Amino acid sequence: MANIPYKIYLSEEEMPKAWYNLKAVMKELPPPFINPATSKPCTAEELNHVFCTELVDQELNTRDQFIDIPEEVHNFYKMYRPSPLVRAYCLEKKLDTPAEIYYKFEGTNTSGSHKLNSAAAQVFYAKKQGLTSLTTETGAGQWGTALAMACAYYDMPLMVYMVKVSAEQKPYRKAVIETYGGKVIPSPSVTTEIGRKILAQHPDTGGSLGCAISEALETSMKKENCRYVLGSVLDHVLLHQSIIGEETKAACEKYEIQPDILIGCAGGGSNFGGLIAPFMGEKIAGKNNMEIIAVEPASCPSLTRGRYAFDFGDTGQTTPLMKMYTLGSGFIPSPNHAGGLRFHGMSPIVSKLYHDGYFSARSVEQTKVFDAATYFARCEGILPAPESAHALKVAMDEAIKCKETGEKKTILFGLTGTGYFDLSAYMSYNDGTMEDHIPSDEELEKGFATLPQVEA
Amino acid sequence: MANIPYKIYLSEEEMPKAWYNLKAVMKELPPPFINPATSKPCTAEELNHVFCTELVDQELNTRDQFIDIPEEVHNFYKMYRPSPLVRAYCLEKKLDTPAEIYYKFEGTNTSGSHKLNSAAAQVFYAKKQGLTSLTTETGAGQWGTALAMACAYYDMPLMVYMVKVSAEQKPYRKAVIETYGGKVIPSPSVTTEIGRKILAQHPDTGGSLGCAISEALETSMKKENCRYVLGSVLDHVLLHQSIIGEETKAACEKYEIQPDILIGCAGGGSNFGGLIAPFMGEKIAGKNNMEIIAVEPASCPSLTRGRYAFDFGDTGQTTPLMKMYTLGSGFIPSPNHAGGLRFHGMSPIVSKLYHDGYFSARSVEQTKVFDAATYFARCEGILPAPESAHALKVAMDEAIKCKETGEKKTILFGLTGTGYFDLSAYMSYNDGTMEDHIPSDEELEKGFATLPQVEA
Repeated sequence: MANIPYKIYLSEEEMPKAWYNLKAVMKELPPPFINPATSKPCTAEELNHVFCTELVDQELNTRDQFIDIPEEVHNFYKMYRPSPLVRAYCLEKKLDTPAEIYYKFEGTNTSGSHKLNSAAAQVFYAKKQGLTSLTTETGAGQWGTALAMACAYYDMPLMVYMVKVSAEQKPYRKAVIETYGGKVIPSPSVTTEIGRKILAQHPDTGGSLGCAISEALETSMKKENCRYVLGSVLDHVLLHQSIIGEETKAACEKYEIQPDILIGCAGGGSNFGGLIAPFMGEKIAGKNNMEIIAVEPASCPSLTRGRYAFDFGDTGQTTPLMKMYTLGSGFIPSPNHAGGLRFHGMSPIVSKLYHDGYFSARSVEQTKVFDAATYFARCEGILPAPESAHALKVAMDEAIKCKETGEKKTILFGLTGTGYFDLSAYMSYNDGTMEDHIPSDEELEKGFATLPQVEA
Repeated sequence: MANIPYKIYLSEEEMPKAWYNLKAVMKELPPPFINPATSKPCTAEELNHVFCTELVDQELNTRDQFIDIPEEVHNFYKMYRPSPLVRAYCLEKKLDTPAEIYYKFEGTNTSGSHKLNSAAAQVFYAKKQGLTSLTTETGAGQWGTALAMACAYYDMPLMVYMVKVSAEQKPYRKAVIETYGGKVIPSPSVTTEIGRKILAQHPDTGGSLGCAISEALETSMKKENCRYVLGSVLDHVLLHQSIIGEETKAACEKYEIQPDILIGCAGGGSNFGGLIAPFMGEKIAGKNNMEIIAVEPASCPSLTRGRYAFDFGDTGQTTPLMKMYTLGSGFIPSPNHAGGLRFHGMSPIVSKLYHDGYFSARSVEQTKVFDAATYFARCEGILPAPESAHALKVAMDEAIKCKETGEKKTILFGLTGTGYFDLSAYMSYNDGTMEDHIPSDEELEKGFATLPQVEA
């Protein structure tokens, strides 16, 4: 174990050539999507109206453990991957812990996060299918940026419905998307029926992610050769994100690093599912007994306080029903600066694995998260995204425990991105105005009351 | 030359262990600094009042071609270095050029630029000397961020005088510096005599870099165990930045890459001087005949339209006099979004090499620079800093020439940083309101009129 570099980069030859499909190794599968109109499982044909054909194939693939990464996508990955696996020597020293700490850092590309891993794949398949435009929504803006970057690379027109309040509060996020050629439409907008309807009822609304999804979906359905693309939650997104876990595992094996604890933040679950994929595959097969922890904000605790139930993916209740840990599509998380973790539900794959006891979950308060983020920035140099700092916080907690017990555990966490576009959050932390919001049981009950009555 | 990866990372063992001191290999040296009060060369003792002792030693060292990087600084470098040398395969393809294009990318650390290379060294020496605080100024904010990062790492208090208009226009830059624990004081301020004087005369002024330098200097002189640190222009800063060129050269040698053209942007000259250092050393020794090009904004053309003369480093005319290419310390560059290139002068080393004909210089207009930046972002993924995009623009020009002539040249340029904190510039480019400003001969004459009457 001697002489581990600060940053481990795989060579191009060592980069994974296939994605890792967790569903092929799970002992039990998550139930299929349900069409709310028929109460029956969605067919591939139904899904093909919304998503690219190859993505639907991947979504439904429970057979192949490895799915080849197309050469074009592999080449795109080579522009910004492999991402480094970093040994946090300086953090270890400052914490004075016997633990070894590593983080897989996905923030070295311009989108500032792991989101580009799926965007690169999704736009490639859209281009291959002959589509002529795409739509999506973005809240915090990381997904919109990543998708705009991929669309610029493949020369694919893109319309991004951006939650109006986000577009106003984060003009620079909007500017990046536009620099990459994406068309940003603050949502709700007059470009869709649902947008016009909402504007008529609530002319002053700042919008919501649920509304933006509904607008992006409506536009994609009405436009010829257009499809909607989504940056989290779905199985094919987790599949693409498995590149994170595969690179991590390859780097660990190269340097004989054996993590005892693996930690990721979880919003929709794509980064977490991607990071853990190959490690979880081994755990399911009984080949390791790693402790795996998902971290979520206390203000939006879908795993730690949610219910495992069928629910819609959007507030507008237009998507198929997915069985997942959810707070109810009507749950409105209180303000939190980790926009990427403010989703009421959770990836069906991640939810099923959690339900079956393969990993644990913790929720943390945002002021504690920013304590950890600032501590980390000052010794390791990197300014973390608020989302990523959730995983960091728990990694630090575990390292401090090691100091108390004297255990020399190996802790590995996913640092999904940078906080360059989240500085208003750091400003509110720096000036002491940041607050924590933990929903009361009554608030949660209001969310659960919006769960659809489905029995599958 | 086959099979060159997209990104070349040196291993930790391959990282340079010493800085490259260009002055030890130059056939003629730049003249020493002149003390404007005595009209005599500055002594080490005089400089020691302002700068750390070891930095003064480095500033005056014309003897040692290699100066060891202290182990502590080498370890700091390992946190974010080596930076990648990237083969711009996608840019080559999009330009349809036979040229091979490479860029050394310094933007992967949180400061977003190469500035951290010198900050890491300067704060280390300050700590070693037992200093208890540092002062500096920042305009665009890259230097202030880098220095705050290094001060956080070494636990050294820092006061940053930030040009008031910058602090107001770039609140997020200020927030980053504060997150790293730096104290930001919008300049002019009431904390210094010169600040109070300027405020009395011009209560509504937005400040200037010259004034911020004067305030930082005044504070450092009055405070015990405090020194002033500077992020460009000086010889010891170029020395630290030679890590860029040394890594680049090591990577080139590893993959048998032989650049025909080497291109860097030049503001104060630290990045340019650092990038070219070891290549220039060989050129001086007659071992290569590389074409080397410095690129500057047409709005602030110190090399292409300036004079080679003794001048002050600041508008307030408080620094020693340096012989350099300058537009006069009273020259006020018209608005330009490349804040890091808006300096009236140029590094004395870079100026001397230019005067002696070792490289050429070009000036470019900012709208053309942003054309190139956007083109690059869309195919290579990275959003360049406006400063860095000056070098990119000329690299693209040269690659297009190769297409016309059919020559298969190897072009290497320095991509010094990212544009995440320059999005207001991209916004003005995107919405078509960006303008070019080329100073008239009369405007230049006004600047030259502020040159001091010195003959050394």
